[in-house]
This record gives sequence, C-alpha cells and structure tokens, in this order.
Amino acid sequence: MNKKGMLFVVSGPSGCGKGTVLGEILKDDRFYYSVSATTRSPREGERDGVNYHFLTREKFEELIGNGEMLEYAEYCGNYYGTPLTYIDKKLSEGKHVILEIEVQGAMNVRKLRDDAVLIFILPPSLKELRRRLEKRGTESAEVVEKRISAASEEIRTADKYDYIMINGELEKAVEDFRSIITAAEMYSGNNKYLIDEVLNDA
Amino acid sequence: MNKKGMLFVVSGPSGCGKGTVLGEILKDDRFYYSVSATTRSPREGERDGVNYHFLTREKFEELIGNGEMLEYAEYCGNYYGTPLTYIDKKLSEGKHVILEIEVQGAMNVRKLRDDAVLIFILPPSLKELRRRLEKRGTESAEVVEKRISAASEEIRTADKYDYIMINGELEKAVEDFRSIITAAEMYSGNNKYLIDEVLNDA
Repeated sequence: MNKKGMLFVVSGPSGCGKGTVLGEILKDDRFYYSVSATTRSPREGERDGVNYHFLTREKFEELIGNGEMLEYAEYCGNYYGTPLTYIDKKLSEGKHVILEIEVQGAMNVRKLRDDAVLIFILPPSLKELRRRLEKRGTESAEVVEKRISAASEEIRTADKYDYIMINGELEKAVEDFRSIITAAEMYSGNNKYLIDEVLNDA
Repeated sequence: MNKKGMLFVVSGPSGCGKGTVLGEILKDDRFYYSVSATTRSPREGERDGVNYHFLTREKFEELIGNGEMLEYAEYCGNYYGTPLTYIDKKLSEGKHVILEIEVQGAMNVRKLRDDAVLIFILPPSLKELRRRLEKRGTESAEVVEKRISAASEEIRTADKYDYIMINGELEKAVEDFRSIITAAEMYSGNNKYLIDEVLNDA
C-alpha cells in the first residue's frame, strides 16, 4: 500500500489560536505544512522555502497562467498564493498537507479539490478573542476592534467548511483536530482499495 | 445548548468483532444502543426491551403502515425491524443512537435519514475472519464457509458507507470508532448554532 496523503485546509480568525494547534499537529512528520509563495521581497531573517517561496512576479504569473497556483490573491501590490507543485509532490509521497489560508482562498480550494477537508477553528467567544488580542499587547485598541470586526465576518462563513471546532483549551483542540484527521483517513471514498485487500487475503 | 444526538449505523460481517467494539463504546452513557423489534416469541431468558421489543404482528404492521419503522425485513415468517419511536426519543434527549444492522437495513436508513453516519467494520482479511469463526468452534466447516461467502458479499458493499474501518486490534478499533464520533460531532451542518453562540458572546 502506498496511500496518498490528504489535503487539510485550516482557517480561523486571527487570535483563534490556529497556529498553536497546528504547531502541535505538525510535530508528527506525517504532515507537511504548505509554505505560501509571494512576490514580495524577503524581510530580514526570512528564508526561501521556510517563511515563503520567494518568486519573481514573472514566475508567479507563469504559475497562475499554467493553472499551477491552487489559490492566490494580490495584496498591497504583491502576489500571495499556494503553488500546487509542492502540494501534489507531498501528497503523492503519502504526506497529509496542511494549508493555513483565509476564507476566500479556502473556498477556491474547495472548488478545485473536492476531496480537501476544510476545518474552521472558532474562538470560544468574541469576548475571549478580544481578550486574547488585547493580551498580545502589540496592537492599539482601534486595531483590535478592526480585527474583531474582521473576525466576525470570517466566523459567519464557518458553515461553509466541513468541520467547525472550538479552540477553548489547547489540549482538547489538538485532540479534536486529530480526531478529524483520523476519521478523514477512514472516509470510504479513500479506502475502496481496502475492500479488495481484505477480500484477496482469503 | 440542548444538542440533539446523532444516528450511527454500524454494519460488518459476522466475526468482524463489531459487538466487542460496540461493547466498549456503549460503556459511555452518551450512547443508546437501539434494540430491534420483532414479532417472534421470546426465547427463554430473553427480556422485552433488552434483547428485543417483542411486538404482535398487528402492532408491527401498524408501525410499518404509519411509517414508524425505520427499516424492517421479514425472516422465517417473523418481522424484524427498527422502530423510530425509541430512536427519536433518545436523539432528542441528546443521546447518540447506535443501530447495529445489516447492509440492506443500513441502505434503507441512508435513504430516510441523510444525517445518519454509516460505518462499516472490516475484518483485517477474509483469512482472519475464517480463523475467528473457526475458533468459536460452534459451527461446522460448511457453515463457516457459508458465512465467509456471505461476508464477502457484505464487504463488497462497504464503499456505500461513510466510513470504512478495520478491526484488527480491539484497542485501535475502539479509538478509531471514537474518532469518527468526535469528528461527526464537529460536522459543520450540526454546528451552525455555534457560530451564533460565539458571535453573540461579544
């Protein structure tokens, strides 16, 4: 058996703690975290292939033209997107690929890959989200309110995902995330080959 | 929040060990094992509502006529089936209901309840299934072969279920089953109310 990996798309508002949950999940090397591509210049300390795949504008547009960008957007004059090459390579190696992208990107992935598993991570409440954002202490009250407002919009789209999970307590959230993965691995659509394997070993 | 329970339908060939897996799952009182109804007479030691709901033929046919039988079949002159009353009551109390039924019944449930979660339990191989059946020592070689042949037919339908899991090692199988339940509890369709809860707690 050389089973292909599965594509997991994870979204959730800033402050929902998805980075922390994914940090735990990614300790298992069955997973590959998809690094985005961008045309913006590397900042100090950023490394190609780690923080981003840094591409020229020409290369990025060539990938778009060839349908090799799973999803992309232009933001502040730079492209950001998810190149298919890395994803398909890892999937064919049997790794599960995790895309951490925002709602619009996730909906685009849904259209192109109906076997992708879409997970939305909710904070326990908007109140708690505000508390977490304020606790960071890195942003003004005004910016926090803007983020809360953006978060509300994102949260309203959560029902378009396959799964909705709450990140209240980290350990529970990681366990929930793992359950989704374990269950997805048992989707009958991915396991028809098992039927033959069982029947042939007679 | 007073969340409704979910309906889980479990099938698998005789000897796949589904009874043992369900025995572990049912230790948790969030679950209700749906007891079938039948028109056959109770055998010695059988209790009404435990082994079966023992109904008269008239009562059973009345339930069929009223659409109150989720699925049923006639076998050796007696009816066997799943009465909806008990199921809907338990679901509305927030319990998960487990139906252990054969393939035809499961397909009928699928038609009537598209929110049901269908799980097929496979033995690791036909060879292992034969070994388990022979180990029981209760059946002749001929009967074992008949069971193996029936099992092969059932196994071929496994791809019509939502999930296919293998019962190789009990502990792993119970864990897999629990992951399916935990993931199903996070299906976005069942959790739209969470979006409002999170947004309203601002």
